[in-house]
Amino acid sequence: MAAAQKIKRTVYVGPFVHSQSLQKLDICPTGAIGVDENGKIAFVERDVKDVGDVIPVTQKYGWQNSQIVRIKDNGFLFPGFIDTHIHASQYPNTGIFGKSTLLDWLNDYTFPLESSLSDLSKARRVYNRVVARTLSHGTTTAAYYATIHVPATNLLADICLARGQRAFVGRVCMNAMSPEYYRDESVEAAMRSTRECIEHVRGIDPGFEIVSPIITPRFAPSCTTECLREQGKLHRETGIPCQTHISENKKEIELVKELFPESKSYADVYDSAGLLTEKTILAHAVHLTEEEKALVKEREAKISHCPASNTALTSGCARVRQLIDQGITVGLGTDVSGGFSPSMLEMVRQAVWVSRHVAMTDGDQAKLSMEEALYLATRGGAKVVGLHQKVGGFDVGTDWDAQMISLGSVAEDGSASDEIHGDPVDVWGWEEWEDRVAKWVYNGDDRNTAAVWVKGRLVHQRPGFQP
Amino acid sequence: MAAAQKIKRTVYVGPFVHSQSLQKLDICPTGAIGVDENGKIAFVERDVKDVGDVIPVTQKYGWQNSQIVRIKDNGFLFPGFIDTHIHASQYPNTGIFGKSTLLDWLNDYTFPLESSLSDLSKARRVYNRVVARTLSHGTTTAAYYATIHVPATNLLADICLARGQRAFVGRVCMNAMSPEYYRDESVEAAMRSTRECIEHVRGIDPGFEIVSPIITPRFAPSCTTECLREQGKLHRETGIPCQTHISENKKEIELVKELFPESKSYADVYDSAGLLTEKTILAHAVHLTEEEKALVKEREAKISHCPASNTALTSGCARVRQLIDQGITVGLGTDVSGGFSPSMLEMVRQAVWVSRHVAMTDGDQAKLSMEEALYLATRGGAKVVGLHQKVGGFDVGTDWDAQMISLGSVAEDGSASDEIHGDPVDVWGWEEWEDRVAKWVYNGDDRNTAAVWVKGRLVHQRPGFQP
Repeated sequence: MAAAQKIKRTVYVGPFVHSQSLQKLDICPTGAIGVDENGKIAFVERDVKDVGDVIPVTQKYGWQNSQIVRIKDNGFLFPGFIDTHIHASQYPNTGIFGKSTLLDWLNDYTFPLESSLSDLSKARRVYNRVVARTLSHGTTTAAYYATIHVPATNLLADICLARGQRAFVGRVCMNAMSPEYYRDESVEAAMRSTRECIEHVRGIDPGFEIVSPIITPRFAPSCTTECLREQGKLHRETGIPCQTHISENKKEIELVKELFPESKSYADVYDSAGLLTEKTILAHAVHLTEEEKALVKEREAKISHCPASNTALTSGCARVRQLIDQGITVGLGTDVSGGFSPSMLEMVRQAVWVSRHVAMTDGDQAKLSMEEALYLATRGGAKVVGLHQKVGGFDVGTDWDAQMISLGSVAEDGSASDEIHGDPVDVWGWEEWEDRVAKWVYNGDDRNTAAVWVKGRLVHQRPGFQP
Repeated sequence: MAAAQKIKRTVYVGPFVHSQSLQKLDICPTGAIGVDENGKIAFVERDVKDVGDVIPVTQKYGWQNSQIVRIKDNGFLFPGFIDTHIHASQYPNTGIFGKSTLLDWLNDYTFPLESSLSDLSKARRVYNRVVARTLSHGTTTAAYYATIHVPATNLLADICLARGQRAFVGRVCMNAMSPEYYRDESVEAAMRSTRECIEHVRGIDPGFEIVSPIITPRFAPSCTTECLREQGKLHRETGIPCQTHISENKKEIELVKELFPESKSYADVYDSAGLLTEKTILAHAVHLTEEEKALVKEREAKISHCPASNTALTSGCARVRQLIDQGITVGLGTDVSGGFSPSMLEMVRQAVWVSRHVAMTDGDQAKLSMEEALYLATRGGAKVVGLHQKVGGFDVGTDWDAQMISLGSVAEDGSASDEIHGDPVDVWGWEEWEDRVAKWVYNGDDRNTAAVWVKGRLVHQRPGFQP
C-alpha cells in the first residue's frame, strides 16, 4: 500500500518558494529541506549557499547517508497544488462547453458522459488519465466528484492510491431532477451506495492517509430533502467530510427557491439538512447573500472558488476578497469540466483575472495579487480540505507534497535552453526572484513541473527529467 | 531574400479548418490543398477521403511530381494567426506586471527595458527570441512595436525577414512625456529616424512582401501635436500604414484631455493629425465614446482588441460585440508585455473570457463564440493589417500562411500517445470535429502547433516533428 512505503531520506538543495501568509511569499534562494523515510519534512535550512554547505547540514542532523537532490534549471521547489473541486468523471469533456450555461450544460454535455462511466473499462481509461494529468500539473491533492456508480467510484479511489495522489473521492448522490438514465433509484439505494464507497476506501487505506471518502450530494436540485438529510446524518455520524455546489448560477438559485420553498436560502437548504459544517466544501458561492455568507462563516464551512468555470459558463464572479475579509476560508478548484483546464496554475491565473474584473466594478481592493492566488492554491486549499496540519507549505513535521519547478533560459544568441520540450518560460538571467516566480505563474505550464512528490514519494516526473 | 525563394509544389492532404464567416467555421475533414512554387494556394479540394483519392487530384492539376504532406495525429490545418499588436521590445517582461496599471507600468517596467535595447547585442537576443517564440505559437503575421532606436528596429526587420515571419515593424516615435533617457530629441530627429527605418525595410524587402514598415507614434501623450502631425503627413504621403494606442485606461484618457484641450476626443487627436485612416491600427479602444466609434467607423480605422492586457492591467473590457455590430473591423493582439502571453491561441481564449465578463453586465448578446474569436485571430486580423487579400483563410490565390495542428490521443489504458512532449490535449476518439477544435482552443498550446508556414516556406516545426 502506498501509504506504508518507506522512502530514502532525501535532502532537497536549492531555492524554495511557499506562502508565508496570504499576502507574502517566502522565497528562499539557498534552501535545504530534509525529508525523512516517512515522507515528512524533518528540517528546513535557509543558508545553504555552496556545495560545501550541504555536508555541515547533513552532519547537523546525522543525515550523512541521505540522498541529495539538487534543484536545477533556474528552478525552485513549490508546494503541491490542492484542487478543491474537480469532477474526475467529466475530464474527457474538458474544453467542451459551447455557449451553454449551467443547467443546459448539465443536460447536454455532462449527464450523458457521467452516465457512460458505468462501463468500468471506460472509467479506468478516464480515471487513469485524469489522475496522471492532474499530477503532471502539480496537483498533489484533489477533491474529486466521481459518478453515481459504486464500482467506478471505487476504481477511482484505487487509481489515486496506486498513483499516489492524495484524494478525496466522492460518489455522487442524486435522486431527483436528473435524467431517468442517471440517478439514484431511492434514498435507501443512494445511502447504501454511498456507504459502500466509504467502506471500500476504508478497506484500501484504513487511516485515510492518502485517499479519503467524501460525502457528495451533487447539489440541492439533484436531491430530495429527505436524501439531503440522510447524507447530512451520515456526515455527522461518521465525521467524513462532505462536498457540494452552492449558488453558482442565477437560474439555479431560482430553481432552488422553487424546489425548497420552506428554506430561508440556498445555504439554509444545506444547513437544515446538517450538511453545512466545518468539514463542508462548497463549490462556487458566486451569488451568496450577506445572510448566507454570515451563515457559512458561522458554520465554518469552506469555499472552493472556481474562476475558470464561472467565467466559461458565464456564471458570474465570486467576490473572493469579501469572502476572505469576512473570515471565510477559500481555496481554488478547477471544476473540470465546467472549468476548461485541469491545471491549478491556470486557476491561479484565472483567480487573478476574475479579481481584476471584480475590481473594474468594485474597486482596486478586490484585486488578488499573484501571492494571494498562490496562497489560495496551496495553504488555502489545504484548509478547505482540512489538511492544513499536513500539507500546503514547507513546515517541519508536515508531509512532503511538493513540485520541482524548472524554467527555461535564453542563450546569448536568443535560442532556448530547452528546444526538446519547448519550455514556455524564458529566463534571461537578470530577473529578480519575484519576477521568476511571476513568469512561472503567468507563462508556465506542466512543462515546468519537472517532478512531483506526495508524502515523499515521487509520483510524477516530466519525461526525460532526472531528479 | 526570403521573399524570392522558390519552394517545392506541395499538396497538403487531410482535415483543414478555417473561418467561412464571423460566425461559421468551415471544417473539412477530407481536404487537399495545393500550394505552388510561389507559396500560393493553387487549389482546394474537399473530398479526398482515401489515399487513392490523392492521385486523381494531382492528375487533375498536372501536379504529379508534387510533394505530399499528410496531416497526422488527429490534426488539421489552420490559418496562421495574425497578432495585430505586439511590443517585440517588451518581450522579456512577459508575465511581469505586478499590481500596476498603465501609466505606472510604463515607468516602472517598460521604459527601462525598451531603453536598454540601444545595445544591439541585447536587441539581437531579444528579437531572435520573440520572433522564434511567436512563430512557435503559429503567429505568421505580427504588427510589432520596436523601440526608438534605428539600428535595433532595423535589426528586428532583418530577423523577421530571415526567419520568414510576415511582419510590420514600427520604430516607436515619442518626443514627449517620456523619461529623459528614452525619447526622441526633437520632431526633426524623430522624423529622420522614422524615415531611416522605412528606407531600411525598403532596402531589404522592396515590395514589402514579407516585412513592411509601419509608422508608430507610441500614443498621444508621448507625442507633441507637431510630432503627431508630421507622422500623419508621412503616413498620407507614403501610404505606409500606421499604428498607435487609443483609450486603454481611464487615467490615460484624462491625461489626453489635459494635454490636448483643443481636441474633441482622444480619437480626434489622431484624426486632426491625419493619423486616423483606413490604414490605421488602433490598439485597445476599451473606453471609446459613441462619437469616437462613429469617427473610427467613418475613417475605416481598424481596432486591435487586446483582452489579456486589458484584464491584466485592469484597463477595462472592450465592447467587441458593439464594435463589430457597428461595422468596425476588429482583430486580436497579444500586446506583449502588457499582455502576459505571446500566444494568439491564448488571446482567442481571452477574447472569449472578456466577452463573458461583458455579458455578465451587458447581456448574452455580448458573448463571443469560439468561432468568432478564431475569426478575429485570422481573417479579422488580416483585415486589420490590410492583408485580407493575401492571408487569413484557405482561399485559392492567397498565400500559404498556415499551421499544422496535432492533437494527442488517449490509449485504452488511459496513457497518452505523446509522453515525450506532453501534449496538453486529450482526444478520446469519440469527439465530433467541432469538439476537437474546441479542445485545441481551450486546452491547446504551442505543443499542438507542429509546423508553421509563411508564403509556403516552412518557418517553424516542433522539435522532433517531420511534416
